[in-house]
Formats: sequence, structure tokens, C-alpha cells
Amino acid sequence: MDWLTRDIPSPDQRYLLAAVARQKQLTKPAGSLGALEGLAIQLASLQATATPRVDRTWISIFAADHGIAGAGVSAFPQSVTAEMVRNFVRGGAAINVLAEQYGAHLEVIDVGVAQDLHDLDIVHQKIALGTANFLEQAAMTEEQLAKACLSGQQAVQRALKKHSQLLIIGEMGIANTSSATAVACHLLELNAARLTGAGTGLEEERIQEKALIIQQALNKYEDIARDPLSSLQYFGGFEIAAMVGAYIAAAQQKLPILVDGFICSVAALVAVRLNPNVKPWLIFSHQSQEKGHQAILQALKVEPLLHLNMRLGEGSGAAVALPLLQSACLLHQNMATFEQAQVSQV
Amino acid sequence: MDWLTRDIPSPDQRYLLAAVARQKQLTKPAGSLGALEGLAIQLASLQATATPRVDRTWISIFAADHGIAGAGVSAFPQSVTAEMVRNFVRGGAAINVLAEQYGAHLEVIDVGVAQDLHDLDIVHQKIALGTANFLEQAAMTEEQLAKACLSGQQAVQRALKKHSQLLIIGEMGIANTSSATAVACHLLELNAARLTGAGTGLEEERIQEKALIIQQALNKYEDIARDPLSSLQYFGGFEIAAMVGAYIAAAQQKLPILVDGFICSVAALVAVRLNPNVKPWLIFSHQSQEKGHQAILQALKVEPLLHLNMRLGEGSGAAVALPLLQSACLLHQNMATFEQAQVSQV
Repeated sequence: MDWLTRDIPSPDQRYLLAAVARQKQLTKPAGSLGALEGLAIQLASLQATATPRVDRTWISIFAADHGIAGAGVSAFPQSVTAEMVRNFVRGGAAINVLAEQYGAHLEVIDVGVAQDLHDLDIVHQKIALGTANFLEQAAMTEEQLAKACLSGQQAVQRALKKHSQLLIIGEMGIANTSSATAVACHLLELNAARLTGAGTGLEEERIQEKALIIQQALNKYEDIARDPLSSLQYFGGFEIAAMVGAYIAAAQQKLPILVDGFICSVAALVAVRLNPNVKPWLIFSHQSQEKGHQAILQALKVEPLLHLNMRLGEGSGAAVALPLLQSACLLHQNMATFEQAQVSQV
Repeated sequence: MDWLTRDIPSPDQRYLLAAVARQKQLTKPAGSLGALEGLAIQLASLQATATPRVDRTWISIFAADHGIAGAGVSAFPQSVTAEMVRNFVRGGAAINVLAEQYGAHLEVIDVGVAQDLHDLDIVHQKIALGTANFLEQAAMTEEQLAKACLSGQQAVQRALKKHSQLLIIGEMGIANTSSATAVACHLLELNAARLTGAGTGLEEERIQEKALIIQQALNKYEDIARDPLSSLQYFGGFEIAAMVGAYIAAAQQKLPILVDGFICSVAALVAVRLNPNVKPWLIFSHQSQEKGHQAILQALKVEPLLHLNMRLGEGSGAAVALPLLQSACLLHQNMATFEQAQVSQV
């Protein structure tokens, strides 16, 4: 897994400075487009161009099951992971509707769903029929972890082959807020109660039970080194590890990333701890309603674009933020300058 | 101006309840689409349909000048109002780019720009070459106020003739944050310092001067009745009065409204005070960076969708929120139900 810590290029400062200068010339009070100005400037520096665009967005959804689901930490049965993959293939899920609205390419990768899905037209990279229950043993072996990260890297290769300008990674996996919460708590040395939330919709009493279960696992492995790959191996999911691989590979290949909600942000945290230079390549789309999300964003010292109380996963929050990036690029490119429009300046 | 207080229909409760029920059947945890669920439900009840849509959005930008500009309350010279109208016609402003991105129809109405604009292909309804300086006299006569409100009503008629599904009103008028601030302070009985902000970008010292000027006007007319039409007549602008007329006329005609930032929210406040049943027809798009906006939204007891630190006007914040409404409708209509997708429920 040496590739995970290999060099990541810096964003291009020349295009950043040129974009800052252009924003000041456009026919609007300086700064009045708020976050959209920052997005245009960031995308110009990431894409190393005066005319950043996000017309071709690639969405990869990684699906996998979790041994910890057996402990009753989710409101939904484990079979929903496979059922939702079938829903993605038929086009009935939220992410399908959003991908179509914005003309994004959508693919689904099975990295560990607990059912045979070979009848489906998806990317088949199943590592196992779900992770092990981390109450009993490490969620995955080192070899499985390496495979999952590689699966993320391969998604980035497919995205680049189609000249994608932006990457969104989504996830599907019943019980994966438990897995993500455990990873984050282990890495940040926090109690489970601090980050454990409702996931797909647990009642308050069951959230407390979920926190106790996660805390039990954290206690069991308290001697494990708090380094990103160990946290990921002991508590993570195949889809979370794939996201870590995808984020790092995308940054290495200079492909900007739009990060979805809680689980994606935990993957982003792991990626940034592994390879800090991934951070400038990440754009955080939204603040999820999931309890622990804010703490993860604070640990990363980032501000998300949207606050819509979403908590769906699948990359849906990132997809909802996509038109803001498109607007930012179009405004940056197509607005007239004060000089062109003969508008008086301050 | 009797028409301003005429009946406004209530949103349709049957379609509201049907939309609530449908949201629970879609393949996602209940509530997980956050604000997008509320938008779909609201639009279903406003449009009185099981399949709300916002494919045809009508944007009217009202432009006018302000006598108070002579007091030096803006960072930009008054000539910028006319220059920006020319920029709208040539397609170089932010709202042009956003309207094109989302396929919205855009029209510009001159209700009081301080220059002759008859060479331009816009709607010509100039009431005067700007309002009077409200430090010296009422900003407009009662007759001018009536004309401005009617101009708003006529924009709604044009929108409805083209079967528009959503209305955005934008504004352009140098010094109109001063006018809007004075209207709101008068109506809400607040000191000018409480609401006065940077507008197009004043430095802190000049913001304090601007607040003093507005306070001076408020003191001068402290005996004027604090009713919405008086506040509008004494301190308002032609474009602000036109917006009030447009919001009320749209609600009377059952056309949902997406409200932009500070100035539009002040117009919405006046409209709601005049005719409280306008309120369910208003969707608040964004929290502007302009200092007084939050207080106006609180007075209206509403939560905006976006917090992007925008402060541009022209309807631009509303236009940036438009894809969220479109997503909400598409998700509501096109997602599969649990039954259709054979996905297990809680």
C-alpha cells in the first residue's frame, strides 16, 4: 500500500492568482458572489486552467456489507444493501435522479455486498461477503484492506479515461455509520457517544445502544496504534477503504473531488491523515444531519457548502451541490468585466 | 391600491398530505433528503399537483434609482444602475449567466432609472428619474407608489401568460440597501445601526455614516404611521414597491415565489404585513451576507435554503437555489418506492 503515501501535486498557484484577479474584474461588487467565487478560484487552481469546468462529473458508488450489522446497529436489515444496489441499477434511487439531472456518469462497484450480485451490470470487485464483525476481530485483513484501496484507485482510472473533471464517491452499506463512527473515534481518540448518531433513522434509545456497542469495540482494541490504516483495518468497511483509495488516487492524478456527507468525510479524514496533501483537492459539499459529521469537518478544518439536513448517503449531498460548482465556473467564465460592459468601478 | 389586500388562496392541503405520504414511500430513510423533502411537499401544495415542477421559471428584474444615493451611502456611483441595465441587456451580468444555466426567462423593467433607457429592449415603465431623497421628503408620492406596485402585478401577468411555474424577482438600484434598511427599520421600529450593512461593499467607517444618515431620516418621520404602505412610500424605492406588488399578485394568482436576498426579503416583509396570506407562497432562497438580512428573516420567521455569503442582488441568490427546487421535484417524482424497487422497509 506504499502508493497511498506517494506524492500529491500542489494546486497551481499561477491559475489561482489569475482567477482571483479575474473575479475582481467581473461586473459585481468584489466578493459579492460569496462561496461561488472561492469555488471558481479553487477549481481554476486544481484544474490548472483559466476556464475551470465541471461538465463531466464521475460518480462511483462503492457498496459493501458490515459484520457489525449483526449487532443490530441499523434501523434497516442488512439485505437492504443488495436491494439498494439493484435499485441503483434500475435507476430508482436518489443518486440516479440527481446524476441524470446534472448529466453525471454513475457507476456502482460491489466491493463486499453479502449477496451474489453477478446478475447485475456493475463493477464486480467483491472482496468478501461483508467485513468481519469488529466486536470479534479486525473488520478486515491487511490484504483485504489493500484490495479495497486499490478498488478506489481503479475507479479513478476509469474516471480519468473518460476525461472527467470532478469526482464524487458515494457509498451504500447497511451499518456503515457504525463503521465510520468507530474509525473516526479511534483515530481522533474520542468516545463513541461523542460521534454516534441516528444513521438511517434510529430512535434515541437505540442510538445509545449503538454507541455502547461501538465503545465496546474501541475498548477491545485500545492498544492498536491510532494510525489511519490501522483504524481503517480494524473498524472500517470495504467501501470506506475504497473511498480512501479513491480520494488519494484522485489527488495524485489532479482530479478534484466533491465530498459527500458523514461517511465520505471520515474517509477524507483517513486520507488526509495518511497523505496530508490530499486536502486541497477535496471540496466538502454539505453538512449532514448525522450527529458526528460536524466534529469530523472541524477535525479537517473545513466548511461545507450546503446545510440542508440531508443524511441519505449514495453521494446524494455532493450531487445536490454540483450545480453550485457549475454556476461558479460559468459565472467565472461568462460574466462581463467592468471594462467590457463599460460599468463604472468603485 | 385596494387590490394589494385582496384574498390570497391557501395552499392545497390535499396535495400537501399526498406529498408527505409519497415522501415516506420513496427508497430512502424517511426524512433523509432534509430540506429537499420540505420543498417538494411545499411545491406540491402550492402548485396543487402530485407532480410539482419548476422547469419554467420567470425572472423579472426591476431597476430604479434612489434620491438617497446623493447622500453618499453607496460604494458605487448612481450611474451604475443604468450601466448594469445595459449589462443585463447584453447578457454580461451574473443573473444572465444563471438564467441561461437553468433555462429561466429573464426580463428587465425600468421603473425609475435616472437615465433615459428607451434605446434598450426592456419593459419601459419608468415612474420618475429616481425617487426623491428621503432626507428631504417622502421618497415617492402615493400615486407613484400605486404605479410601482402595479408594475409588479403586470410582471406576474406576463409570467402567467407564459405558464411559468415559479417567480424570481431581482432588483438593481444603487443605494437600495439604504432604502430597504430604512423601510425595515421603520416598520420593525428598529434603530438604523441595527440593520445597516455594507451594501455593495462600504468600509466600516462609511457603514457608520450610512447608518447615521438613515437614522436621521427615521427621526424626521417618526410620526408617520408604521404601516407597510407608509414605510414603503416614505423610504422605499420604485423597484422595492414593484416587488411588493409582484409578490402579492403572484400569491393571489397561485404562482410560487423564490425570494432572493436582503432587499427582496424587505419587500417580502412589507408584502406579508400588508397581506399575511402571501407568506406560504414565499420560498426563501439564501441568507445574504448583508448585515440586516438575518433580522428580516427572523421577523418573518423563515429559514432560507442556502448560506453562501452572497450579497449581489439581481435575483442571483434565488437563481443559485433554483436547482435545489428542481432536484426536489425530480426526486419526488422519479425515485422508486420501496414497493416498486422491492427494498425492505424498517
